[in-house]
Amino acid sequence: MLDGAARAHREHLVPIPGARRAFMAKDGPREGHVALVVGGGSGHEPCFLGYTGRGMASAVAVGNVFSSPPPDPILRAARAASGGAGVLFIYGNYAGDTMNFEMAAELAGEEGIAVRTVVTTDDVASSPLEDRDGRRGVAGNVFVFKVAGAACDLGWSLDACEQAARRANARTTTMGVALEPCSMPQSRRFNFAIGPDEMEVGVGIHGEPGVSRETMRPADAVVDTIMDRILAELPKESGGRVAVLVNSFGATPLMELYVLYRRVEQRLQARGLSVARNWIGHYCTSLDMAGASVSVLHLDDELLRLLDHPCDTPFFRVGGAV
Amino acid sequence: MLDGAARAHREHLVPIPGARRAFMAKDGPREGHVALVVGGGSGHEPCFLGYTGRGMASAVAVGNVFSSPPPDPILRAARAASGGAGVLFIYGNYAGDTMNFEMAAELAGEEGIAVRTVVTTDDVASSPLEDRDGRRGVAGNVFVFKVAGAACDLGWSLDACEQAARRANARTTTMGVALEPCSMPQSRRFNFAIGPDEMEVGVGIHGEPGVSRETMRPADAVVDTIMDRILAELPKESGGRVAVLVNSFGATPLMELYVLYRRVEQRLQARGLSVARNWIGHYCTSLDMAGASVSVLHLDDELLRLLDHPCDTPFFRVGGAV
Repeated sequence: MLDGAARAHREHLVPIPGARRAFMAKDGPREGHVALVVGGGSGHEPCFLGYTGRGMASAVAVGNVFSSPPPDPILRAARAASGGAGVLFIYGNYAGDTMNFEMAAELAGEEGIAVRTVVTTDDVASSPLEDRDGRRGVAGNVFVFKVAGAACDLGWSLDACEQAARRANARTTTMGVALEPCSMPQSRRFNFAIGPDEMEVGVGIHGEPGVSRETMRPADAVVDTIMDRILAELPKESGGRVAVLVNSFGATPLMELYVLYRRVEQRLQARGLSVARNWIGHYCTSLDMAGASVSVLHLDDELLRLLDHPCDTPFFRVGGAV
Repeated sequence: MLDGAARAHREHLVPIPGARRAFMAKDGPREGHVALVVGGGSGHEPCFLGYTGRGMASAVAVGNVFSSPPPDPILRAARAASGGAGVLFIYGNYAGDTMNFEMAAELAGEEGIAVRTVVTTDDVASSPLEDRDGRRGVAGNVFVFKVAGAACDLGWSLDACEQAARRANARTTTMGVALEPCSMPQSRRFNFAIGPDEMEVGVGIHGEPGVSRETMRPADAVVDTIMDRILAELPKESGGRVAVLVNSFGATPLMELYVLYRRVEQRLQARGLSVARNWIGHYCTSLDMAGASVSVLHLDDELLRLLDHPCDTPFFRVGGAV
């Protein structure tokens, strides 16, 4: 898989000597710029390697299917991408990732590389608001990577890059629904069992149980359940702008994402929120799981500016329009 | 679905008054430019509406799931996009599409709009080489749209645009493999039956039977079967450049497409062919069918120039790199 990705993305990725499980953006390291290092298990493609390139991640570390990369490729990614202005780690909130990225940060620190960490926690279904920091990081991490990558590209300080990423994460909420499990290549088994007319509401990107197992309902009703939960965490006053990501977990086709997006936009508009930017497609998948998630980033002027800053990666491009 | 797509792609698509099933590119009609009108059944998203925008299709007509759009939206698309220099229709070779696009072309002709037609026929598995014109149009049509859209954007004559599209189609070959059928929303049934350890080699994008039903084999062996067939239609002399599209039919994840792409590139290189450009992902799907196709466009200098010409559509962008 990694060999194929390296061949496919020669325009964006370069191998890091000695590290089969890490890639660097082609234009790195960039002196005086903070480097953004992301990573996580494979099986979520185009997360994470597909977001490596100018204006987004400076380097990426790749783990086995649904498991964290070990500390070594993370450390090598940090070393390779470092331009002397510090390195920002961003990854989803999972025990394995936290352990390995923390170990890599410590080792990098011993080599004189200043590392800061932002852990993404956008999944509203995984823990109550009082325990925001205990939530899982899911598809909304794409927004956090984009915002942080723009700050790095603009030459902001390590402090400022970290703060921008933290604000993007704090203002991003995601919730997903699964209709079918995914089949794990290592075990040749499904990762959970679900009836043909059932859906798992609030599912995680590794098939983690959500908030409820329900009978299948029409698309609009499913979106209403998701949006009730997401809107409950947005400021009560009317007005404002958001960015939306409607993400397929794998097997759910784009046609169905459009059906979902229609209702998402209706619900946001009814709340007085306008959709300033949207992305619809396969952005953070769970192999061939059927289902989708909705992520909403509550924008402010600076976050919108960072979202609009040009970037050029295999699966996320902004700017440079014809 | 169409309402959601219209909301999602306001940056690229505008509705055509009176036609719910057709969209125009935002910057059209463009006076003195040939307009490219594409279309086909839905269920193949991002085909066809996702390729509408500057530098690719000028307008699109959308049918029901796996069925041709009726003549009326095609005619309205042609009328709306026409800039006075003629209209080029490009669509896949299926009886329904041919009937409806021909009827629309006739009606447009009566209104003084000159229409030319190129039918895509890239599926090597659907008919022998002697009957090239009898083959189905599948994922390779994306290359044909891209090349023709560039010619239109460059202001070429209707003759020249048609010839470029014909050459792109004649030099594009595709073959696909399905592991699981797709479930049809209109009937709530699978479109064909297949065993858990079987694969349909040479399948069409509507689940049409291929050349053989075989036992599942490793990814490299599957690619070898596909590439043997594709390479047999490329010139025997060594050397040259190709563009490659590895396309998921829906449920097959990007991770597996990378595994396939690795072997595709190895086989091309062994034949002395270098991959000048590649695209990997969901480009021409069959709802949630599991499987993938490989398309190879045998380039010449002009085709590469047209492929590299900037374009900006919801799901295909070239140029304007950061």
